[in-house]
Amino acid sequence: MVLVVQKFGGSSVADAERIRHVARRIAARAAGGTRLVAVVSAMGSRTDELIALATEVTVDPRPRELDVLLSTGEVVSSTLLSMALHDHGLDAVSLTGQQAGIRTDAVFGRARIAGIETARIERELASGRVVIVAGFQGVSESEDLDVTTLGRGGSDTTAVALAAALGADACEVYTDVAGIYTADPRICADARALGDIGYDEMLELATTGARVMHARAVEVGSLYGVEVRVASTFDEQAPGTLIRGEAVMEQSNKVRGIAHQSRVGRVTVRGVPDRPGIAARLFSPLAEAGVSVDTIVQNVSTEQLTDMTFTVASGDLSRALRTVEAALPELGAAAVVGDSDVGSVSIVGTGMASSPGYAAAMFETLYTHGVNIELISTSEIRITCVVDAEKVNEAVRALHEAFELDQGE
Amino acid sequence: MVLVVQKFGGSSVADAERIRHVARRIAARAAGGTRLVAVVSAMGSRTDELIALATEVTVDPRPRELDVLLSTGEVVSSTLLSMALHDHGLDAVSLTGQQAGIRTDAVFGRARIAGIETARIERELASGRVVIVAGFQGVSESEDLDVTTLGRGGSDTTAVALAAALGADACEVYTDVAGIYTADPRICADARALGDIGYDEMLELATTGARVMHARAVEVGSLYGVEVRVASTFDEQAPGTLIRGEAVMEQSNKVRGIAHQSRVGRVTVRGVPDRPGIAARLFSPLAEAGVSVDTIVQNVSTEQLTDMTFTVASGDLSRALRTVEAALPELGAAAVVGDSDVGSVSIVGTGMASSPGYAAAMFETLYTHGVNIELISTSEIRITCVVDAEKVNEAVRALHEAFELDQGE
Repeated sequence: MVLVVQKFGGSSVADAERIRHVARRIAARAAGGTRLVAVVSAMGSRTDELIALATEVTVDPRPRELDVLLSTGEVVSSTLLSMALHDHGLDAVSLTGQQAGIRTDAVFGRARIAGIETARIERELASGRVVIVAGFQGVSESEDLDVTTLGRGGSDTTAVALAAALGADACEVYTDVAGIYTADPRICADARALGDIGYDEMLELATTGARVMHARAVEVGSLYGVEVRVASTFDEQAPGTLIRGEAVMEQSNKVRGIAHQSRVGRVTVRGVPDRPGIAARLFSPLAEAGVSVDTIVQNVSTEQLTDMTFTVASGDLSRALRTVEAALPELGAAAVVGDSDVGSVSIVGTGMASSPGYAAAMFETLYTHGVNIELISTSEIRITCVVDAEKVNEAVRALHEAFELDQGE
Repeated sequence: MVLVVQKFGGSSVADAERIRHVARRIAARAAGGTRLVAVVSAMGSRTDELIALATEVTVDPRPRELDVLLSTGEVVSSTLLSMALHDHGLDAVSLTGQQAGIRTDAVFGRARIAGIETARIERELASGRVVIVAGFQGVSESEDLDVTTLGRGGSDTTAVALAAALGADACEVYTDVAGIYTADPRICADARALGDIGYDEMLELATTGARVMHARAVEVGSLYGVEVRVASTFDEQAPGTLIRGEAVMEQSNKVRGIAHQSRVGRVTVRGVPDRPGIAARLFSPLAEAGVSVDTIVQNVSTEQLTDMTFTVASGDLSRALRTVEAALPELGAAAVVGDSDVGSVSIVGTGMASSPGYAAAMFETLYTHGVNIELISTSEIRITCVVDAEKVNEAVRALHEAFELDQGE
């Protein structure tokens, strides 16, 4: 019998009516004889509400306690969906991350899944039940069995990891958009949903701004060969996008999508002595402080002093500045300055590195639209430009048109 | 070192400010060298909100799922209180009912505590931590480890049971009133908090309307000899009321308090054949339907037919009527009628049964205030009269004055 893992995001279970809608979809699918495991996120903005509550109580919520607090959001939605399924005559059971056997390390707030003990889920499936799993959470492998959370977007990771552990026939992620778009459709009216996309391309899109699918979930999918269909909860006709391993061979247009970040934080360290090991001394404290660094540029050295510039998520800017400030004496650097008036725009596609001309075409397009490039970074399948925040949307539209992404595949 | 179990009700942790207030109280107590376990209820009306959410999703929430859903309320408040304690430099840890070792039967919605494995709590206390326990919940002893809830007021029971299992030196229940009153102070301006009260008296008060302390918690206290102090969260000067085993000997006034229920459901079964076994056939189906029956009166039989009248909680009235309606053919009874225009008023005090005259004084007082008595029931330490719902408040005030409860002890 076919086994499918489905995941429903926060907007799909935002209120009682939507939960009943999701239950109808699951019931219709189960009626066709499919065994189902559904992973759910917290209702709508519940996670943000819980964070706000914690922030009201204390400026510095203890991570262990914050994780237990946040995990309740997914527990609530899982029980409500299970109740709604009973109304369709289906036997359903909600499981917490712990009950679902999701074991993690003890890094609160961004725990990594260490393994999944599938015995309970398999037992429930064998008794003919639909299994609803509270996403985003697990339990630490220590004797304390403390609740952990997987970080933002963690429910995607829960779903893909469960699909891998259960050997599911399919993994489907339902969201409020019709799949992975060539660009953000709120910015670019011509954007269209892709039929399929490779793991690596998806990873670059997710990392550089396409929030439909969480990067870690894509990594897990890639690692375990789990194909993931991303589709709309509400538009049942749209086929969605299949994220899978094999790149589509000989694509006529190798740019698959435009990603963007409306706002990033930019940090510039001035007067850094240009000697070996200095970069490690700068970036190690940032890593310890949990700040992920994106684009890094080091200017040409003059008189043995150099300027180093890098970007971070805009929410991490003040932490990054505090961390670098504290490290200035150790670095022997002059000063650190930050600003948040910049954003980023990226073109993503497998094979760009082996086909010259994409970078040139991107820079030319931005130039003709009067968008000044402040920083550049590249990977095998991505070129990212940091630009004035006010120019991000225009840059997205210009690049979408220049690479003819509005044309069908 | 002294070990105290404290319990803070929903109004005590209703918002971030109150949670910080509770944290200050706990921190002050801990600074004096006391080891503390704090049991918390859900914030304010959160339990009602969660029930409303479930009712929006389905008319008939599956009890297992409802229990998991409701248990999140106490988990949220326990984590927030733990965070607030960290701001006072205290090491605190929140534990779910499961983590706190509270094992119950699998009767969802009104599970009974089967035992408490205190190892985790004792380990946390030994590491110098304040332990915050999510009240109202436990985990079933089956291999599924399903979350269960103890029913309304269950956090009181959690606290008293923990105090018993841990051999605590004291158990303190903090609430929004200054203790156990001689009558509801919202109705009777002269009501005053009692210095102490016996378990049995408290049980009668709790059962017949004083909602400060849950009856099951009093039972557990009585069974294990746990003295419970009920006091105000906010008025730190008020000493509160000590609930304890030994009745105060030779009290000059044996009526300790007036309890009331503003509204109860009254059910009358007409034309019941007066033959042996008929009461069992009437009340067994009600017990199976989970309806608790209070006062029962059977009229004198005429022509082998009798009328039976009983009261139920007003929320159970429609269920009671449906259940009896279905049993009418089996009973051979003519009809069942119900109304909810009645309430009850009770006088409670140890030793009333052995001292004649209390019942007479109660009936006389109600008569002189024009309150008609519709049903009467008595126990060793309680006399309850069912009266017109509109007359309940006046009856409370009249009895409070007649038995001189406004005078000090």
